[in-house]
Amino acid sequence: MNFELTILGTNAALPIVGRSPSAQVLQIHHHHFLIDCGEGTQLRMLETGVRHNRIIQIFISHLHGDHVFGLIGLLTTWHLSNREAPVDIFAPEGLEEMIGVQLESGHTKLKYPLEFHPIDTKRHALLFENEVAQVFSLPLDHRVPTSGFLFREKQRSDNIIPEKIETYQIPVEQISAIKDGADYILPDGRRIPHQELTVPAPPPRSFAYCADTRYRKELIPLVKGVDLLYHEATFLDDNKDRAHRTYHATARQAATLAKKAGVGQLVLGHFSSRYEKIAPFAEEARKVFPNAIAAEDGTRIEIPAPERGLRE
Amino acid sequence: MNFELTILGTNAALPIVGRSPSAQVLQIHHHHFLIDCGEGTQLRMLETGVRHNRIIQIFISHLHGDHVFGLIGLLTTWHLSNREAPVDIFAPEGLEEMIGVQLESGHTKLKYPLEFHPIDTKRHALLFENEVAQVFSLPLDHRVPTSGFLFREKQRSDNIIPEKIETYQIPVEQISAIKDGADYILPDGRRIPHQELTVPAPPPRSFAYCADTRYRKELIPLVKGVDLLYHEATFLDDNKDRAHRTYHATARQAATLAKKAGVGQLVLGHFSSRYEKIAPFAEEARKVFPNAIAAEDGTRIEIPAPERGLRE
Repeated sequence: MNFELTILGTNAALPIVGRSPSAQVLQIHHHHFLIDCGEGTQLRMLETGVRHNRIIQIFISHLHGDHVFGLIGLLTTWHLSNREAPVDIFAPEGLEEMIGVQLESGHTKLKYPLEFHPIDTKRHALLFENEVAQVFSLPLDHRVPTSGFLFREKQRSDNIIPEKIETYQIPVEQISAIKDGADYILPDGRRIPHQELTVPAPPPRSFAYCADTRYRKELIPLVKGVDLLYHEATFLDDNKDRAHRTYHATARQAATLAKKAGVGQLVLGHFSSRYEKIAPFAEEARKVFPNAIAAEDGTRIEIPAPERGLRE
Repeated sequence: MNFELTILGTNAALPIVGRSPSAQVLQIHHHHFLIDCGEGTQLRMLETGVRHNRIIQIFISHLHGDHVFGLIGLLTTWHLSNREAPVDIFAPEGLEEMIGVQLESGHTKLKYPLEFHPIDTKRHALLFENEVAQVFSLPLDHRVPTSGFLFREKQRSDNIIPEKIETYQIPVEQISAIKDGADYILPDGRRIPHQELTVPAPPPRSFAYCADTRYRKELIPLVKGVDLLYHEATFLDDNKDRAHRTYHATARQAATLAKKAGVGQLVLGHFSSRYEKIAPFAEEARKVFPNAIAAEDGTRIEIPAPERGLRE
């Protein structure tokens, strides 16, 4: 079961050749979630082979252009492609009007249902849930109302041990109940306990998206122990004051947060176009938190399922 | 003095790898005019080396996304780059609200003056004029109000013949008046006629942009004899019915217009993404009008100044 992040854009607001504005696609099992949608995102998807028609839920952190100007193009492309599947957009207040006016100007009546779900950017709350994951808001500290996103894979049912099916001749229609916790009663009345028949499913995985924001210590308990943390690093530490003034973070600050929250892996992005090279971002971060990388457009990060658990 | 068109995008509404949506930059002398601005235009400019901060006037043909979704990104980039020079946008009614709502949503107060000039898309009229050119609207036939654009270089003053300055010892402060039509009076009272001192400047050049539109015979007198005609060719002639139904044109129709209007050169664009290859567009057009090409993203077409005229 996949848990994979594809980073489509790594640059801050001012564009630069080779680095697009923010957009990421998180795949959890067969569900694809789009996170932010800067200008050109739909083209980046075509180039990287992300199949955008699988996306149903879109999460927009804030209404600055480098996180949202690609959305209208994507929505229009779906319309022109005769999409019928609904789309749900989670975003701070204001996006519905922004998109609505553009659709009206082009005389476009979407062929699919589109629903906006305004985010209260001051609260850490459950935004969305389906059979594979829950998505929570993360209050961030930026110039306009901004939310990060925490994706938590759901704990799956225990895995049945194939040999036990054989040994006890368990009928196929009982398997689902056993996975979910039932014991198995043999025809002679003997009870085989659930624990003997199953191993736990791998523990669920998690990803936190934190952009745009100043360093914010209140995030530490919220992203504690996530497998993968994306944190913006618009600047290096030599521009720490500028970062603070513009409500952004430095690579060192992002790494400090990663360290204090004990995350598995840190990936940096949203680099200011004043920096031609991004290697220094990774270098600066690794001094504080070794398992850190600086994303490039197209970077894919897979979180493999941990070894299947054994009863202790 | 330059007269050069750079085509930044050649695709119709549904994006495809390698073909961006519509946008062109026309350079006349030192003035750069942007015509349409599909998603990603500012990145295409960076990639092709077009210096977008030289642009002051923007002409938008209609409010379909593939002609306008890149505008907000460009305007925002100028804002973030501390632009001070004013921007004038000529477009059908509705664009001001579309842009205004987006700027408000991002809490952006532009640092430069931005003025919208609504186009009456039913009239052929002068939209704009500066020292080098005039720009006229061209009523087109599309699903929403749409205007083409006709750019006419202004006739420049006659060129003075350098040897005549020497022969008659013409003082430098008189040269401008002579270029503009004055005779020169020698100190002894003799009159040297303007015609003897000058040769005419090269005749002015012209470019017409016609997208999106059905074949429209009313355009013929309006674009008669232009040096360069850009006409949309969303389809090949095998999709003529579909072209008509969707208010688009075929390559053959564009070529027919070029032939009847006696233009110098035809360039085709706005290709439907159903066509992987664009060579067939040029082939179809050339059967009707030989001096035709199918544009690629990044195509540059220079209209050289004709040989400097001689008095007949």
